[in-house]
Amino acid sequence: MLGRLCDDLIGAGVHGLTPLGSTGEFAYLSFTQRRRVVEVAVQAARKRVPIVAGVASTTIADAVAQAREWQRLGCDGILAILEAYLPVADEGVYAYFEAIANAVSLPLVLYTNPNFQRSDLSLPVIERLSRIANVRYIKDASFNTGRLLSIMERVAGRVQVFAASSHIPACVMLIGGVGWMAGPACVAPRQSVALYELRRKGDWSAAMGLQRRLWSLNQAFAKYNLAACIKGGLELQGYAVGAPLPPQAPLSADGIEDVRRALAAIGAL
Amino acid sequence: MLGRLCDDLIGAGVHGLTPLGSTGEFAYLSFTQRRRVVEVAVQAARKRVPIVAGVASTTIADAVAQAREWQRLGCDGILAILEAYLPVADEGVYAYFEAIANAVSLPLVLYTNPNFQRSDLSLPVIERLSRIANVRYIKDASFNTGRLLSIMERVAGRVQVFAASSHIPACVMLIGGVGWMAGPACVAPRQSVALYELRRKGDWSAAMGLQRRLWSLNQAFAKYNLAACIKGGLELQGYAVGAPLPPQAPLSADGIEDVRRALAAIGAL
Amino acid sequence: MLGRLCDDLIGAGVHGLTPLGSTGEFAYLSFTQRRRVVEVAVQAARKRVPIVAGVASTTIADAVAQAREWQRLGCDGILAILEAYLPVADEGVYAYFEAIANAVSLPLVLYTNPNFQRSDLSLPVIERLSRIANVRYIKDASFNTGRLLSIMERVAGRVQVFAASSHIPACVMLIGGVGWMAGPACVAPRQSVALYELRRKGDWSAAMGLQRRLWSLNQAFAKYNLAACIKGGLELQGYAVGAPLPPQAPLSADGIEDVRRALAAIGAL
Amino acid sequence: MLGRLCDDLIGAGVHGLTPLGSTGEFAYLSFTQRRRVVEVAVQAARKRVPIVAGVASTTIADAVAQAREWQRLGCDGILAILEAYLPVADEGVYAYFEAIANAVSLPLVLYTNPNFQRSDLSLPVIERLSRIANVRYIKDASFNTGRLLSIMERVAGRVQVFAASSHIPACVMLIGGVGWMAGPACVAPRQSVALYELRRKGDWSAAMGLQRRLWSLNQAFAKYNLAACIKGGLELQGYAVGAPLPPQAPLSADGIEDVRRALAAIGAL
Repeated sequence: MLGRLCDDLIGAGVHGLTPLGSTGEFAYLSFTQRRRVVEVAVQAARKRVPIVAGVASTTIADAVAQAREWQRLGCDGILAILEAYLPVADEGVYAYFEAIANAVSLPLVLYTNPNFQRSDLSLPVIERLSRIANVRYIKDASFNTGRLLSIMERVAGRVQVFAASSHIPACVMLIGGVGWMAGPACVAPRQSVALYELRRKGDWSAAMGLQRRLWSLNQAFAKYNLAACIKGGLELQGYAVGAPLPPQAPLSADGIEDVRRALAAIGAL
Repeated sequence: MLGRLCDDLIGAGVHGLTPLGSTGEFAYLSFTQRRRVVEVAVQAARKRVPIVAGVASTTIADAVAQAREWQRLGCDGILAILEAYLPVADEGVYAYFEAIANAVSLPLVLYTNPNFQRSDLSLPVIERLSRIANVRYIKDASFNTGRLLSIMERVAGRVQVFAASSHIPACVMLIGGVGWMAGPACVAPRQSVALYELRRKGDWSAAMGLQRRLWSLNQAFAKYNLAACIKGGLELQGYAVGAPLPPQAPLSADGIEDVRRALAAIGAL
Repeated sequence: MLGRLCDDLIGAGVHGLTPLGSTGEFAYLSFTQRRRVVEVAVQAARKRVPIVAGVASTTIADAVAQAREWQRLGCDGILAILEAYLPVADEGVYAYFEAIANAVSLPLVLYTNPNFQRSDLSLPVIERLSRIANVRYIKDASFNTGRLLSIMERVAGRVQVFAASSHIPACVMLIGGVGWMAGPACVAPRQSVALYELRRKGDWSAAMGLQRRLWSLNQAFAKYNLAACIKGGLELQGYAVGAPLPPQAPLSADGIEDVRRALAAIGAL
Repeated sequence: MLGRLCDDLIGAGVHGLTPLGSTGEFAYLSFTQRRRVVEVAVQAARKRVPIVAGVASTTIADAVAQAREWQRLGCDGILAILEAYLPVADEGVYAYFEAIANAVSLPLVLYTNPNFQRSDLSLPVIERLSRIANVRYIKDASFNTGRLLSIMERVAGRVQVFAASSHIPACVMLIGGVGWMAGPACVAPRQSVALYELRRKGDWSAAMGLQRRLWSLNQAFAKYNLAACIKGGLELQGYAVGAPLPPQAPLSADGIEDVRRALAAIGAL
């Protein structure tokens, strides 16, 4: 099922795949399950597009072990996530991401999601990390688009920014973002690629027209449990992916209707 | 001093003036002081640009009294703000803004700033308020630019959106905003007008170039006390406006240097 | 009405009255209205118990003016509250309370309520303030009872602590608090005094028995708008105090039932 | 080392041991490491005191597997913790704890720590869970002591309450709590037992005297990373437990001094 989905997404033109992000339920999977997800994605991609797999842990040792294993399995990049239970100071945050970067030769995407993680990346830490050669991208899933512009100005020439589903991708691309790397794109791959192409042409008017139609999908993802949302949407598209892992609840009837409407409006059903 | 500042801003081409916003320290002024601020602004403007004055209170009765007085003094619009101490339910929030709208014949700008106010406007309340004839604009000072797009889609054709300093004005204009109404514009009027003109021409590339240079001013406003920041900036420009009202502290030496640099970089010193 | 209520409370044995606290809707009243409240309370008390009136403002100048006026009207103490719109640093917080203390010869109760105010008192600021001669008490309305013990240890011998309705009064008295100064006591004066008397005798077992019965009243105050709650309770007791000031809503039917049950259970109806 | 510590704690008179709580770094250990911790604790205790081991996961399946394994290893109770990444609704929270209770025959302690976990137990869920036969205790590590009294009233006769380090143990015992189950007790076992004995005798005055001296230890735990704090304290007492797992930082020099002073003041060094 995951293999077929990866294959279909590549067929729809996406420029990369990111297994084990927030929407991909990394936080609900054991190491063994995570490894299987990565293997399937790598095999399905057959090097047609890069695989950027999520590494997430509360400890440096475990994160480094994941990153090395994902590289060994053939991934092309690492999406690095710091989980925390007790608070971590800036020095610890830096040490965590630095250790992952040093453990692999792959490029890193820093990922911070202050809504779900108990740690965040401060601007000074991002600037320090941007000076590590293979720290190349950042995905900030706050709702604060202005913060992305502040990040861009501090790391210009070294690190590039991806939009998350909490941002308006067209806006992130206007201010200099290189794309969007987010759950909703998984059920709207053609439209997401089309948005990217309009941005490449600099046709901001057409891009905003498309963006406006796509936005209701982002709104659904903000309103409901991310994993329930993506699985509900994929089920509507014919992928029997089932429900999110308990005790998470499947998408409610209202949620299914919202997602169905959002997908239908953009021709993704 | 306020009169001269208003005159200079109009001379610099701004399309309106908003006395008694957050940066204008409304929350630190008595009714008598607020009335004097409005009088001075109205007289200085001599109908060359509209005056949209802030109305802010914890009670409906007081807000209505302010709004009526501002209309009597010759204002052209009302920036309506709900202060709260104890929590207010949606029904109360609606009743507050509805009462102000009904008390005057002027157009209203709804204003919500979840960072400083203890109340917020939910999307359902905004939608209900948008159906009142003279509720015409909204300024949302959250950091959540995506929320602005969600608002726009719900109130399209009835209410228009202004950017606050927490948003990137160029982004807000890209998604359909009609301008920006924010503290930093007060020390960068020419550049703010230039940004607006580039947006009107649809020259997004030039707009982003200018926006990028302007952004460090917004960053300073996010970092320091708003009132200290604007007063520090105005002092640098030769307006003897003094310090914010105690116990607020004046801008620190570091803050002055940040603002000076930001203003110098855009030719506003 | 307010005069009769003050008289009845004194008749019920309370050791003091605090007009213009949070429950007393200070944040919804003009200076003129606040002055009238103080006048009525002072006259009704006829020096039988001390009147400790609330002073609350965003500016030092206004707070000092209130404090001086309350002293002139015959108050016996000041409950000092810092309102804030933009953030205030520790130095400003200290300056605010210091200025009030210096403006009057009355003893001060510091009051901080992080749930409703946009400022808070840090432990270092409390310690500094405790060295001012007429800073004598503190009421901390957080939910953090442990913080009260930490405060007590830092200001022992200089400042004493009152319980707020968010704390369990019997616990605050066990750790060394001198009483409770809170909205619910206004509708349960006899029972509140009885609790205090049990504590004075050191009969903790009987105190907890009474405390347990009183707690459902505190729960109602935590669940509903404070002003709606107290006004609803007073109406049930035959005081025609009406509804909280709009846009605050009056107590819902469920709320009235909750308060009625809580009052009936302690014999306060 | 862990075995020796367990043995010493039992020798000091503690009434039970709780491996894999927050202070015990459960969130930083793999399943294999957690199992080893439980084994060592069970063997060291030799049935002299009950072992109540922590079960914590984001999924029901994993939590049930842990609980069954801890029972198989000879534990006497389960401390049940819900970790979350995406939000979980009340129904899911209930289902999680119910599944653990049904998977074992051991008594359960519900544990909620809103400061570190991304889920919390609402009062209605606690009440529902209290009706399951082997749900017998709750430890709420919020700072809200009043909430404990509200819980006690709703679950009286079915579930009993333990104090966490964020509460004042003497207060929790005054309102009806059965003890305290918290990190600091691990470095102050004799004094913690003495506090419990004073409570059993009903000597509240002596209990508060001791509590006051013990409080600076709780303050240190609130100020610094819990794991750094306990490991720093144990090192001072001669247990070579080392530093918390990276990227957590070891206790700073100031922290060590704070903990040393707190321990010395109660005769625990």
